Amino acid sequence: MNYKSELLKKISEYKAQVGIIGMGYVGLPLALEFAEAGFEVTGFDVDRDKVQKLNSGESYIKHIPSERIKTQVAGKKFRATNDFSSLSEMDAIIICVPTPLNKYREPDISYIENSGREISKYFNKGKLVVLESSTYPGTTEEILKPLLDKPLNSEIEGQLICGKDYFLAFSPEREDPNNPKYTTKTIPKVIGGQTPDCLEVAKSLYDKVILNTVPVSSPKVAEATKLLENIYRSINIALVNELKIVFDRMGIDIWEVIDAAKTKPFGFQAFYPGPGLGGHCIPIDPFYLTWKAREYEVNTKFIELAGEINTYQPYFVVQKIGDALNENGKAISNSKLLILGVAYKKNVDDLRESPALKLIEILIDKGAQVDYSDPYIPKIPKTRKYSFDMESVNLIGDNLKKYDAVVLATDHDNFDYNLIYEHSNLIIDTRNAFKTYGLKNGKIYKA
Amino acid sequence: MNYKSELLKKISEYKAQVGIIGMGYVGLPLALEFAEAGFEVTGFDVDRDKVQKLNSGESYIKHIPSERIKTQVAGKKFRATNDFSSLSEMDAIIICVPTPLNKYREPDISYIENSGREISKYFNKGKLVVLESSTYPGTTEEILKPLLDKPLNSEIEGQLICGKDYFLAFSPEREDPNNPKYTTKTIPKVIGGQTPDCLEVAKSLYDKVILNTVPVSSPKVAEATKLLENIYRSINIALVNELKIVFDRMGIDIWEVIDAAKTKPFGFQAFYPGPGLGGHCIPIDPFYLTWKAREYEVNTKFIELAGEINTYQPYFVVQKIGDALNENGKAISNSKLLILGVAYKKNVDDLRESPALKLIEILIDKGAQVDYSDPYIPKIPKTRKYSFDMESVNLIGDNLKKYDAVVLATDHDNFDYNLIYEHSNLIIDTRNAFKTYGLKNGKIYKA
Repeated sequence: MNYKSELLKKISEYKAQVGIIGMGYVGLPLALEFAEAGFEVTGFDVDRDKVQKLNSGESYIKHIPSERIKTQVAGKKFRATNDFSSLSEMDAIIICVPTPLNKYREPDISYIENSGREISKYFNKGKLVVLESSTYPGTTEEILKPLLDKPLNSEIEGQLICGKDYFLAFSPEREDPNNPKYTTKTIPKVIGGQTPDCLEVAKSLYDKVILNTVPVSSPKVAEATKLLENIYRSINIALVNELKIVFDRMGIDIWEVIDAAKTKPFGFQAFYPGPGLGGHCIPIDPFYLTWKAREYEVNTKFIELAGEINTYQPYFVVQKIGDALNENGKAISNSKLLILGVAYKKNVDDLRESPALKLIEILIDKGAQVDYSDPYIPKIPKTRKYSFDMESVNLIGDNLKKYDAVVLATDHDNFDYNLIYEHSNLIIDTRNAFKTYGLKNGKIYKA
Repeated sequence: MNYKSELLKKISEYKAQVGIIGMGYVGLPLALEFAEAGFEVTGFDVDRDKVQKLNSGESYIKHIPSERIKTQVAGKKFRATNDFSSLSEMDAIIICVPTPLNKYREPDISYIENSGREISKYFNKGKLVVLESSTYPGTTEEILKPLLDKPLNSEIEGQLICGKDYFLAFSPEREDPNNPKYTTKTIPKVIGGQTPDCLEVAKSLYDKVILNTVPVSSPKVAEATKLLENIYRSINIALVNELKIVFDRMGIDIWEVIDAAKTKPFGFQAFYPGPGLGGHCIPIDPFYLTWKAREYEVNTKFIELAGEINTYQPYFVVQKIGDALNENGKAISNSKLLILGVAYKKNVDDLRESPALKLIEILIDKGAQVDYSDPYIPKIPKTRKYSFDMESVNLIGDNLKKYDAVVLATDHDNFDYNLIYEHSNLIIDTRNAFKTYGLKNGKIYKA
């Protein structure tokens, strides 16, 4: 049996069953793309709540409308399940699970390993497996391939041959939630196959839903590509964060400097300082390379330095809050503070790794009474990392007056900046959101 | 007397005498722009040879045709001189002199100071002075302003008032020699005036020759802007140089990774590794900030790390040359090596800070017999830093055969890569110039 031509045929006729593991910010939009293209798609997730919501056509991600899900569920092109035995029916399986760090900044690839084991249990010849999660170079080959070469499915005897009996690839997700210009379909997609045939099969699948696919020579090159993209961002954000502190001492406004530098039409890309790094990629992915590099006895000094500087930012902001209060004869201790915006970036409802949480923690530690307001985050639940349990405060003038200072941590577009400016006693602005209001009125402090 | 309106009138009528100090890569093209716009321009330089060449219509910069100079000299719009007393006749004086580092990596601003003193000696009310040289924030205000507030010209009594009696600004040069898309005229120009009137006068002058000027709030913001642009480049080149070494150990080709990452349509800008940093800006300017930051008791860790990594690159290349020779049973000592390309970047005739010179020095130290070939650099003269005295070797097959290895240091477009590939015994490629030839033939090594 020629598994490759059989699978290519199923894909070309939209008859391949597509299974996607992980129904989060990456897996769900991808599942919808495949369903909308005409494939039957099954979304796998261990979270029963998500599975139930999806099957009743309900979205839990702000920028994905429920209507899109409802349409595909009604048309029987999309369903969700937590029963991983259905993996046996899938022709193509795409893994979109989280790859966090543990508290020692080491890669936690347990989600990939667990997915790999579930696939292995229900594996059979003729399938394509693709990993999309950001991870260190070598993961696909070292973690997934052994699980598929000798499947845990006891019906399969002996060893399968990758590139002949089954197909394996890595293709990094490049989702940018809320990007107005680019979506899953229009962001070019890099693909590295374990063998040339693996690449051919994976590319033929993605070519059905992605306008532009970019083949590379191996999974590890594709893995390294995603890391380079995020390392680049992490280092450049850290650089402006460091320069913010240097220029601040010199009495130079880094925001003005960046806006001027941005007028250079070549060789410059603008990054902006902030209260720290947030999101599920930039603060985390680079350390996957750092960890793997140790195996090869090389260091990744830029990544370590960027981590050091970005991690310091919330502490720098707290210091600036203290300075601003101090100029007004107050201490952080016992002051009433309001944090504006706790999402990790503007206009999203995502709290992951948000530096605002760190800010709140440090300020509470120093004895402040802290509230927050965020139109997209009605409450901050207890997490493993943070123990506070807070609800968003209404942004009205009377409320604002009550606080000794408000701290603009995330510059959502729908904040009423005039209202905030009018009614606040003191504003610490980490995003240059109040630039048009001028600095020297003694009310606004940049941090 | 209203000096501002008088000077603005002279500028608007193209009657202002424009003097430019420093007839190098920055000053000469700028002088020609002003002359071509209709101003009478005098170029000042201490180098008698340059002055003589300019006055006879001869260019000494590859990308500036002699014809352009000849036309302006013949039309009496441009002349050059080393007699700085003519500064007394100038209405606007623009300083375009070098700002190197001494061997302790400290700023050498003696060229700016000397220019400032010459201007001061022949200074008078009603003049505009603009500094264009890349330098630390504060230079214009701390070095030039005192020299102009109390001129060395003994005819002037008392103190002049900046912004009323004379005008002072900083406007960083953004020259990019050989850029096919942008020239002096079309690259937006940032200008920071010491006072609002200083800005107005300086902007009115540049608006005559630059399509798009960008006003900022002070000279130090303009100074910081230029540094940010070059720090950004220095750090990003260092980052890919570090990752080159990490990925090399992992058996990943960084060039392939960068080409794949480049397909991301947002949030990424491609930089490429190389044998080290070159040119007169990127390896130098960032340390101007490092030096100044010490005065404010802050560190610039990214700049230091980038310096460390970029400085290491020639040593890494030498190690790779050693490895390649070793695989062929040879040592660096007594081997015959040919360096291809010694200009600091492709297609230019500029040797300044070229990493190829460092490569040659290390290889000679290790006992190799080193020659070089570069179509744009017929000979390498003795310099303060390097003591070798070499002439470019003709690039013909018989010559190539004589060398144990050739090292591609600068990838000029007009090298005959087929010829090099055919006739060389071993190629060490620091620029990925031979990517289409494949790696695994045992002849090409990437470094």
